[in-house]
Amino acid sequence: MSKPNVIVVGAGGVGVISAMSLCHANKSEVSLVVRSDYDKVHSEGYEIRSCDYGHVKGWKPEHYYRDVQEAAESKRFFEYIVVTMKNIPDGPEGTSVSEVIRPLMESNKRNGGKQFAVVLAQNGIDLELELANKFSAGDYCNYHVLSGIQLIGSTKIGPALIDQVGTDKLNVGAFEVGNEEAEGWAHRFVDIYTSGRNTVKFDPQVRHSRWKKLLYNAAINTSTALVGLDVTRSIEFSPCNEYNTIKTIFEPAQREIMAIASKEGIYLGEEDMQVFNNLSKSILFKTSMCVDVEKGQLMELEVILGNPLRRAKEYNVETPTLRLMYSLLTLLQGKLKEKRGQYVFDEKQLKLVKGCQT
Amino acid sequence: MSKPNVIVVGAGGVGVISAMSLCHANKSEVSLVVRSDYDKVHSEGYEIRSCDYGHVKGWKPEHYYRDVQEAAESKRFFEYIVVTMKNIPDGPEGTSVSEVIRPLMESNKRNGGKQFAVVLAQNGIDLELELANKFSAGDYCNYHVLSGIQLIGSTKIGPALIDQVGTDKLNVGAFEVGNEEAEGWAHRFVDIYTSGRNTVKFDPQVRHSRWKKLLYNAAINTSTALVGLDVTRSIEFSPCNEYNTIKTIFEPAQREIMAIASKEGIYLGEEDMQVFNNLSKSILFKTSMCVDVEKGQLMELEVILGNPLRRAKEYNVETPTLRLMYSLLTLLQGKLKEKRGQYVFDEKQLKLVKGCQT
Repeated sequence: MSKPNVIVVGAGGVGVISAMSLCHANKSEVSLVVRSDYDKVHSEGYEIRSCDYGHVKGWKPEHYYRDVQEAAESKRFFEYIVVTMKNIPDGPEGTSVSEVIRPLMESNKRNGGKQFAVVLAQNGIDLELELANKFSAGDYCNYHVLSGIQLIGSTKIGPALIDQVGTDKLNVGAFEVGNEEAEGWAHRFVDIYTSGRNTVKFDPQVRHSRWKKLLYNAAINTSTALVGLDVTRSIEFSPCNEYNTIKTIFEPAQREIMAIASKEGIYLGEEDMQVFNNLSKSILFKTSMCVDVEKGQLMELEVILGNPLRRAKEYNVETPTLRLMYSLLTLLQGKLKEKRGQYVFDEKQLKLVKGCQT
Repeated sequence: MSKPNVIVVGAGGVGVISAMSLCHANKSEVSLVVRSDYDKVHSEGYEIRSCDYGHVKGWKPEHYYRDVQEAAESKRFFEYIVVTMKNIPDGPEGTSVSEVIRPLMESNKRNGGKQFAVVLAQNGIDLELELANKFSAGDYCNYHVLSGIQLIGSTKIGPALIDQVGTDKLNVGAFEVGNEEAEGWAHRFVDIYTSGRNTVKFDPQVRHSRWKKLLYNAAINTSTALVGLDVTRSIEFSPCNEYNTIKTIFEPAQREIMAIASKEGIYLGEEDMQVFNNLSKSILFKTSMCVDVEKGQLMELEVILGNPLRRAKEYNVETPTLRLMYSLLTLLQGKLKEKRGQYVFDEKQLKLVKGCQT
């Protein structure tokens, strides 16, 4: 049996290492959508400084493409579409996950009627709803949506230049609990992704893991982005015990996440919370949203905070802390959108003339 | 009877126009502490573009000093010490209001045993406590502390260069209600400050006015500083009606201010709140704290938000919105302190090695 085709969409720090892991495992034929670094990768390959794979120069995956469209035109059928790009549904037109992968979904559909899987290796909750909404399963030959929760410290620090400082740990499962077929696809992905250098596990409780990771992302990622500080400084700069950052910002937000999750029968404990908060004291780390703000990039605000709040509303859970943070962060997101031209504010009319959401 | 001596401490946009108003009224002998602009003022005088006084070049007050110490050494007795500097009790050593004006308090004390008044023309609440705490009244010959609430659009836009776009409106009263002697000093100050070009009133309800102004400063000044946007953008960038900035950020904060004030028998109404919120929709305006963050200057966080929260605690009033904003803003203030060298964070030890507050 020939090796399955896997395509990685999103060639940042995470995506490139994911492609490398897949190549190293050598159980699949790997494609990568490279985009802005294409010419450099084509002529010189990647330079990768990796805690998992060493210092590698001139590396290229088996196949690489300038964009998703080009990959779709390759006539290749992709058993796995692995999405490692950021998930920003409120970004510019054509940049949401469903819009970006549509050419691959369409070419897979034309290409034989076989089943395939989309692996969303991204932050947040309820990511799968966008796909279910845009690609009705039967129409796309019973594709399965898999959840990848990745803990990895890897950054693209220059064109075709990757710096991986934290080892790659990936948990993979099916979004739909009890869907044995989908779980089979997840198990096979664990197999083809396991390189001997990374840690890959099948995750039977995807949603539990995602809510748990939100204890970090909805509370710590968000608030440190607002103040523009790494996590340790955010803790150390609190003025006194009464206004201790962990007690007055992180924990109230985390308890609200716990309250929302509990309505789904998912119970997170104090110890889950403390793991993240203690970790924050001992490692100097700048969160992804904080880095986004510094770089003038949009934040993954909707999947990290907007979606949990939509669930809170549905379940009638009070979330004053998360609501206020969300309100503030949408304004900061708006500031980023204006910088990037997605919003245009007319200072004479005093209103948004481009980008309004109604 | 000779004209009273008035000294203005703080030669920013507000202080210079205050000195000019006093000079124009010609009922007092005016001194100004000029500090960093001293040489320029000495050689060329101020250039002032003023909506109240026209375009004036080469202007100097009757007396001006390089610092407060020099003013204190003038042997002049100041009937009025007018403080127009920012009130930042958590700033670097020696920069709190009491520390800055101490030389004048001491020279006044030595200089005859007469009564005098300190006019605090500054934002916030409970400003007078710092002075009461540092300068016991009897010791300093029954000095009076007066409250100046100033609405003025005036900015120092360069060395000795002032741009006043909004007319000077000053309300003056005694912090201590019913202290007739202090109120007499306030009435006299109204008289010597009234230039015919400005609007000056005696304010019999100083504390009411200060709480009312906090509806703006504790809710709008604070939150727009966090997101780094002018007020109109902060309103227009909210993503949908459910997360409308006025409803989800400004009003919850304002209602908490109203709840604290009500414990002092001070009742602010919906209409007070709406005045500020409607104003914000129709004028493009960047708040003072937002400007401070942009310029890397410390914010007046303690008098605007810290002091109201201390009162809330004393009165047992729930203030979840203000508490969260304060927690976030102390971190942003910490970021500014680090930039200015007031905080030093050691990235090896992962802690503050200079500036910790315990």
